[in-house]
Amino acid sequence: MNYTAQKPTTASNPLSTEELRAMNAWWRACNYLSVGMIYLRDNPLLKEPLKIDHVKHRLLGHWGASPALSFVWLHLNRVIKRDDLDMIFMAGPGHGAPGVIGPTYLEGTYSEVYPDKSEDAEGLRKFLKQFSFPGKIGSHVTPETPGSIHEGGELGYSLSHAYGACLDNPDLIVACVVGDGEAETGPLATAWHSNKFINPIRDGAVLPILNLNGYKIANPTILARISPDRLAALFHGYGYTPYFVEGDDPDSMHQIMAQTLDTVIAEIRAIQKSARESGKAELPSWPMIVLRTPKGWTGPKEINGHKAEGSWRSHQVPFSDVRTNPAHLKLLEDWLKSYKSEELFDANGRLIPELRALAPQGHRRMSANLHANGGLLRKDLKLPDFRNYAVEVKEAGKVLYENTKPLGEFLRDVMRNNMTNFRVFGPDETASNRLQSIYEVSKKVWMEELLPEDADGGELSRDGRVMEMLSEHTLIGWLEGYLLSGRHGFFHTYEAFAHVIDSMFNQHAKWLDISKNHVPWRAPVASQNILLSSTVWRQDHNGFSHQDPGFIDLVTNKSPSVTRIYLPPDANTLLVIADQCLRSTDCINVIVADKQKHLQFTTIEEAIVHCAKGVGIWGRASNDEGVEPDVVMASCGDVATQEALAATALLREHLPDLKVRFVNVVDLYKMQPITEHPCGSTDREFDSLFTTNKPVIFNFHGYPWLIHKLAYRFKNHENLHVRGYKERGNINTPLELAILNQADRFTLVIDVIDRVPGLAAKAAHLKEQMKNQIILNLAYAHEHGTDKDEFTNWVWPH
Amino acid sequence: MNYTAQKPTTASNPLSTEELRAMNAWWRACNYLSVGMIYLRDNPLLKEPLKIDHVKHRLLGHWGASPALSFVWLHLNRVIKRDDLDMIFMAGPGHGAPGVIGPTYLEGTYSEVYPDKSEDAEGLRKFLKQFSFPGKIGSHVTPETPGSIHEGGELGYSLSHAYGACLDNPDLIVACVVGDGEAETGPLATAWHSNKFINPIRDGAVLPILNLNGYKIANPTILARISPDRLAALFHGYGYTPYFVEGDDPDSMHQIMAQTLDTVIAEIRAIQKSARESGKAELPSWPMIVLRTPKGWTGPKEINGHKAEGSWRSHQVPFSDVRTNPAHLKLLEDWLKSYKSEELFDANGRLIPELRALAPQGHRRMSANLHANGGLLRKDLKLPDFRNYAVEVKEAGKVLYENTKPLGEFLRDVMRNNMTNFRVFGPDETASNRLQSIYEVSKKVWMEELLPEDADGGELSRDGRVMEMLSEHTLIGWLEGYLLSGRHGFFHTYEAFAHVIDSMFNQHAKWLDISKNHVPWRAPVASQNILLSSTVWRQDHNGFSHQDPGFIDLVTNKSPSVTRIYLPPDANTLLVIADQCLRSTDCINVIVADKQKHLQFTTIEEAIVHCAKGVGIWGRASNDEGVEPDVVMASCGDVATQEALAATALLREHLPDLKVRFVNVVDLYKMQPITEHPCGSTDREFDSLFTTNKPVIFNFHGYPWLIHKLAYRFKNHENLHVRGYKERGNINTPLELAILNQADRFTLVIDVIDRVPGLAAKAAHLKEQMKNQIILNLAYAHEHGTDKDEFTNWVWPH
Repeated sequence: MNYTAQKPTTASNPLSTEELRAMNAWWRACNYLSVGMIYLRDNPLLKEPLKIDHVKHRLLGHWGASPALSFVWLHLNRVIKRDDLDMIFMAGPGHGAPGVIGPTYLEGTYSEVYPDKSEDAEGLRKFLKQFSFPGKIGSHVTPETPGSIHEGGELGYSLSHAYGACLDNPDLIVACVVGDGEAETGPLATAWHSNKFINPIRDGAVLPILNLNGYKIANPTILARISPDRLAALFHGYGYTPYFVEGDDPDSMHQIMAQTLDTVIAEIRAIQKSARESGKAELPSWPMIVLRTPKGWTGPKEINGHKAEGSWRSHQVPFSDVRTNPAHLKLLEDWLKSYKSEELFDANGRLIPELRALAPQGHRRMSANLHANGGLLRKDLKLPDFRNYAVEVKEAGKVLYENTKPLGEFLRDVMRNNMTNFRVFGPDETASNRLQSIYEVSKKVWMEELLPEDADGGELSRDGRVMEMLSEHTLIGWLEGYLLSGRHGFFHTYEAFAHVIDSMFNQHAKWLDISKNHVPWRAPVASQNILLSSTVWRQDHNGFSHQDPGFIDLVTNKSPSVTRIYLPPDANTLLVIADQCLRSTDCINVIVADKQKHLQFTTIEEAIVHCAKGVGIWGRASNDEGVEPDVVMASCGDVATQEALAATALLREHLPDLKVRFVNVVDLYKMQPITEHPCGSTDREFDSLFTTNKPVIFNFHGYPWLIHKLAYRFKNHENLHVRGYKERGNINTPLELAILNQADRFTLVIDVIDRVPGLAAKAAHLKEQMKNQIILNLAYAHEHGTDKDEFTNWVWPH
Repeated sequence: MNYTAQKPTTASNPLSTEELRAMNAWWRACNYLSVGMIYLRDNPLLKEPLKIDHVKHRLLGHWGASPALSFVWLHLNRVIKRDDLDMIFMAGPGHGAPGVIGPTYLEGTYSEVYPDKSEDAEGLRKFLKQFSFPGKIGSHVTPETPGSIHEGGELGYSLSHAYGACLDNPDLIVACVVGDGEAETGPLATAWHSNKFINPIRDGAVLPILNLNGYKIANPTILARISPDRLAALFHGYGYTPYFVEGDDPDSMHQIMAQTLDTVIAEIRAIQKSARESGKAELPSWPMIVLRTPKGWTGPKEINGHKAEGSWRSHQVPFSDVRTNPAHLKLLEDWLKSYKSEELFDANGRLIPELRALAPQGHRRMSANLHANGGLLRKDLKLPDFRNYAVEVKEAGKVLYENTKPLGEFLRDVMRNNMTNFRVFGPDETASNRLQSIYEVSKKVWMEELLPEDADGGELSRDGRVMEMLSEHTLIGWLEGYLLSGRHGFFHTYEAFAHVIDSMFNQHAKWLDISKNHVPWRAPVASQNILLSSTVWRQDHNGFSHQDPGFIDLVTNKSPSVTRIYLPPDANTLLVIADQCLRSTDCINVIVADKQKHLQFTTIEEAIVHCAKGVGIWGRASNDEGVEPDVVMASCGDVATQEALAATALLREHLPDLKVRFVNVVDLYKMQPITEHPCGSTDREFDSLFTTNKPVIFNFHGYPWLIHKLAYRFKNHENLHVRGYKERGNINTPLELAILNQADRFTLVIDVIDRVPGLAAKAAHLKEQMKNQIILNLAYAHEHGTDKDEFTNWVWPH
């Protein structure tokens, strides 16, 4: 095969002289605004000679990526307008915000959502000044930017966001500018493979535009210096048909870009038409564009004898000493004047009508496209009644069941009821996590070759709505794009490897925090639901590398208004929580629930009551009715609850006079004061459960210190003794692992004996017994490779 | 260009019949051991008919990837032996451990390091039984595996580990098997670009072997179903020359693999020879192999009517009901017997001499190569005296200096003294983090095209020892490979984006924990030194998305024996800490220090004393000499210390009678009890600093809850009031950000007034003043875009 860059197939100079002139003028306006945003606090139209006072005190922002972003925006506008396209814009180099915010202002959208940034001189002054200014808007494409669902402050996720947005949006084209710096990140490098999950009948299209401006902060980029044929081969290898648009002369670049866009849009439409008319969805070679332009395009060619345009020196503010260096003040003025703003804006500072006419109208403007304010398009899920999927629990603590299996059945019917706006995402583990019932309704989407043996349990389909790829980054990126464009989803992954997406979680939490609390025009989007399964306590065959319950630690660092954490102890509580999460908006809901067989404790009715409270006393496991307990045994998490209950049973058997209260926590934030988190507890609530002076033995699913971090403000904190995972593990049986981390039933009994005043002497024999049990059970595991059969047989106190 | 798979250039059937027979026998032995590890607890040589009692109770492990791993190992042995190559093996699909552990046993190494797993029937029984058995070895390539420096429990890092190991090892070839599941991860997808950082004169080579076995846990893999020409194009695009070895017939596959290995080894040697003889290092097209083999190769073709070999059903244990299903017990016996172990092992269970002779000898065995137990090769760094780089501090709190700049000068000379075993790694930010002095000695390595303008400050060189790529994953992967093979390094990154490598940190910490505490034959390796700079408090121009000090939260979840966290408050303390970290072994040292200009507090002599203690009273900032303080003002972190000192100055000025003790924490673990962490404090130490009953106002760099998590066991914990970052931020001036998070000097003064008994009435006026200061300073920032000039002018109490 001959893999080189494709040549456009359409007319070679599609722009008339007049069109070219007008388009370039619009672009000049964008670039003028970009420079203005970085430098100016006043004199926005340069009506008077530029003075020091017009310049901001601190110059902040990124010029380098901005001109190319506006260039792409401009050209997309042309085809949107001509073909009435439904298109949104994803700015991978989100730090090149001026190049994105400028167009949103020129299209009028900015003034619509922020009326004080009006389309006149005063509005323009405010518009320029606010950029990267304390108390105003940031220097990246933040949630405050209309038309955006991608910040790009942290790099690497533009392409997966783009693909997520185009799913189930057959008419949408997501134009995604990928920076060549960003392209070096792992998440971006694998996100190119997202094309293999797009069904051209049902989904929209992504048009990736790799902008090779050649440099990062201080280095050339890898992709910009690969030989052209290797670069073309790379994208052919990724499954695309690459078109190269390269140069620095604006006029010829406008023609080449227009010609190339005509070609690729036609190609996208042809792919879709063919698939939709034939009803046959095959994996096409989608077009993409490699746009090679100088960094800081149209900026000063040289500053202080150093190359500026086309160099890393243009990355941020090309020259900063404007307030102290008159030569540079002049250079700035000349630079601004090179765009001839007087030809672009009228006397009142409004873009002239001829240029205004270049932008599309209403919601066709990328800055006002509804898909980029997805909450406006969001429809509530049609949820089946979760009660129908409940496990029957005749007697608590007797039935073993895979906790996630009923959830899978529930999700199956959620899928069935919402076949155009709900998807499930997971890294190759839907079945491993026992959610395979979903396949009855919708299989895994697979657009690559299908082999005969796939029919035998492969669960693959062109029409599948389950997304599996061995890249947590790509999956969560897709999900974010899907949610922010107004749909719903459910992500599940191995608990330990949720850390792969820690940073993406952080960024999404920050996005939601700002959107929800500071950007009133953004409508609420569906929450991001994350199930952590295959948890730390049941890594029997994967061992130490797969043991890490710390993702939730990270979650507790983010804004309380957008974070929730649930640890349902059994299948029915998991159902209740899942239903609740699927109804919620503007949050990240983290649910921790293991996939293995576990004892069932609550009927569905009990589960509903228990989850509504988030934390509660389990009466049947307690024997302190009517009196003050001697000790509170508390638990949070499935295995933790099993062991805590077993400990309670041992205590009941051996120390029947001891009054034990059993408390279970489903909503982890109940352990925090309500002053810190909306789901938190009042002092009164907390004290009434955990007492103010009795020992509390708390068996926790995660790292024990997390409970102290949350609960340290409560009165009884000093009596709180927490057990949990503390990095002691290998390949272990479940009981062995609990014992190694001192979160097992025997250790919990010892904890009670050690902490309840007066018990030490009375229960010395029991303590010895427990120590012996630990030794015996470890010995059994090491001899037989399994826990003793009776391990799960005595858990619920009688 | 025509991009298809290359054809080998060497003789087409290089193996004689005899060689072929022997090699295949060795491979049969490997596969026999693999199946044995997964299934057998007894009867290791099948001397008697297979019975239920011979089979493990729980069957755990991954068969699917194992045969191909052994196949590669076998073939590498042939060329190692023939050419006396220095080679190590990286098992990307580390869960295919049986395929790696088997060869280490057959080579004799396993018995050398674990004498009870001797080369006889009893040793073999123990060897098979221990695999994936509670209390024994795990199911992945864990640190217990000789010859390995890569676990592969979490997927995605094999290739960056491989490239890290080959740096500065000119004679080493790192054979890296990449799984096609793993290849879908982001980190792996971009790690292919590592070839662009390898200098063929100075560095060794990596031979990537992409094993397309077609399936993950339950899905086909993306790369296995790309058309062959696109696949070839992809690797051409990545800069390689790909050779395809495809098939399932062992005999012909042996020949093709041998032929291809001959070709690629010759190619590697030719590249190196040409570069070394000419002295001219250019970027070559390194060879790589695409090895397409059936998953579970040589296993049962079909089980219960389902395809097994060549299917995802072979991923783990192909059939598990051996103890209950006699037909499957028979199937297992037949499968084991198909390898004819009686031809491979002698009567005593020892591999027959003819097959033993196939492996290399001594340290040429990949299982015994010293590079894979790098601690044995590690030489202490030749460190210059860090005192020589000290900032002169005539008066504390008066001089402003970029804290990381002297560190850069120190690292420059560390580099100068250690030009073959020390490297610095960072994502495009060495200069941004003010470490650019290093370039005076060694620039950034850049093997792609060099342009004339690079000479103007580009700081690029073929010989550079500074590694920059916009992929934290790749960088930390390189560093881990470099350290584990016996060298030293320093990684620096933006604090917020350290979360990108959270999961890699977790895995490395686990690796070190096991190696250090449970694998006595592993010699200590140099610590992983991580500088977090561009911190949360100085994201003036990047804003909210770049504000996250939570990486250290994660660190505190990992084993205390391998984790250290330092927050030096100024340049001199940073120097002391850096020196200490560069001398340490088997740890991950995390240093948090911002790059911006900060006030300097300690002379180098003071810094030495202060850092040796890790925490201490700053006498000059305190006025409680000889008496009990009324309040303890404590700080940890550069900006936090500045604000706390400024608060102390305000208190001194306005409330001169108030006795304030100032405590600064450099070693964060001093806040934890010594029973929990080796760097911790005794009760006596802690109480003597923080008192047992006085209010403590603690201004912390990170999330405030972390301090509670660490310190909750100490007596005075209930009086500990912690300020820190709590996710309130945008684009902010430094003071504005501190104010928003209530970690500013004014709020701290208010905290003192509110918490010292009796002060509320006396200092009501001061409290009002402080509130006004907050309002005034915010207003100033919002008007001018900067903090007031006097902001840093009054910090140290007089």
